[in-house]
Amino acid sequence: MSKLYVIGIGPGDEAGITLGAQRALEECGVLVGYHKYIGLIAGRYPDKPFLITSMTQEAQRCRMALERAAAGDTVGLVCGGDPGVYGMAGLVCELAPEYPGVQVEIIPGVTAATGGAAMLGAPLTHDFAAVSLSDRLTSWQTIEKRLRAAAEADFVLCLYNPASHARAGYLKRACELLLGYRAAGTVCGAVRNIARVGEEARIMTLGELVEFDADMSTTVFVGNTQTRVVGGRMVTPRGYAL
Amino acid sequence: MSKLYVIGIGPGDEAGITLGAQRALEECGVLVGYHKYIGLIAGRYPDKPFLITSMTQEAQRCRMALERAAAGDTVGLVCGGDPGVYGMAGLVCELAPEYPGVQVEIIPGVTAATGGAAMLGAPLTHDFAAVSLSDRLTSWQTIEKRLRAAAEADFVLCLYNPASHARAGYLKRACELLLGYRAAGTVCGAVRNIARVGEEARIMTLGELVEFDADMSTTVFVGNTQTRVVGGRMVTPRGYAL
Repeated sequence: MSKLYVIGIGPGDEAGITLGAQRALEECGVLVGYHKYIGLIAGRYPDKPFLITSMTQEAQRCRMALERAAAGDTVGLVCGGDPGVYGMAGLVCELAPEYPGVQVEIIPGVTAATGGAAMLGAPLTHDFAAVSLSDRLTSWQTIEKRLRAAAEADFVLCLYNPASHARAGYLKRACELLLGYRAAGTVCGAVRNIARVGEEARIMTLGELVEFDADMSTTVFVGNTQTRVVGGRMVTPRGYAL
Repeated sequence: MSKLYVIGIGPGDEAGITLGAQRALEECGVLVGYHKYIGLIAGRYPDKPFLITSMTQEAQRCRMALERAAAGDTVGLVCGGDPGVYGMAGLVCELAPEYPGVQVEIIPGVTAATGGAAMLGAPLTHDFAAVSLSDRLTSWQTIEKRLRAAAEADFVLCLYNPASHARAGYLKRACELLLGYRAAGTVCGAVRNIARVGEEARIMTLGELVEFDADMSTTVFVGNTQTRVVGGRMVTPRGYAL
């Protein structure tokens, strides 16, 4: 039986790759992925063939990986962060039954929520919700509904895809909505290029986040009512007696 | 300046440890942690001293680590999964200002949500909420409020700490509440002992989850209205055209 590994390589540099992911990458005869993620690891595997696709060709990328595996190669589909959080794992699982000879194994990784949280301090040490602000596949109405529900129940929020070239102003709209539920002084954070060139972490208030210029490499954190700044870090206390 | 690494070792075996975590563990002169997590790595570092505390001594454990670092040791505080998700990162950040000579670095890891998701398939490929069912530090009222909000807004739910010796019946209460918002046929999953001896993954319906016997090593996933079983896996489609 041939094999397709769906490999989470973590948010950025080598330090965020698990030993399991490294082992799978080494074992693969072919690596498939979006050029940004392949670029993060290509230098370490100079002798392996890579198949690169652009960002909006997700289904094509997964089929390409499944087809190569069906043809007998051990294939690695390379995903940034964790393949199961807004990554390719879902699509591969949906398509896999068409390729019964291919055994699929998903290798989890450090996702931007936890990688980014570690840079800011500890914003996610209590209940949190992850919401993508991309309305490419989800209606803005559904996104708003989830933001409202999470804000109302005092979840910490981790926002994926807060902006892109085509979606300027989405983070602003989300913040304006959240300001209906949370004080303008709510502690927020943004990280950019986690563990990559241009890495940046900034703590700010929700009032400031409204005007923050996020891009495709940004992950945003909105604190709950307990989140505060301690020693320069964004911290959501779990409630332990100190 | 002395150093305290707060190290996420992933959910179980060596495959889930990042290269960064491995590097930090090797650099440390002393490793501090709850016995369960220290047990997962102790065999690999036979020459390092370990300081082990029991489960309910979280603040003491963090102070012990900070004090050893303040005394000049390079210390690693070892956390299962990711230190920032229901882990020790928050407490360390809260206490760190009392130890100004200690530089704290948080090393993220694979948390049970993503590690468990990979075993089940891809339950978290759309917006999700993480909720701990432990009412040791959070009122059951707050937990219920969050479960209701997440269910109402059609988040996938990942439930941490669904049960313990002292908290039998909590998962049942949570499921009964969720059945007010989701059909009994909603696809759910439970994983136990991720990447450890006794590893187990089971897909079931919400109606079946009510009677599921979870323990302290279990992580539970409740699908949204789109989650389904595909080829034996639990999958929440992101919405890509296949």
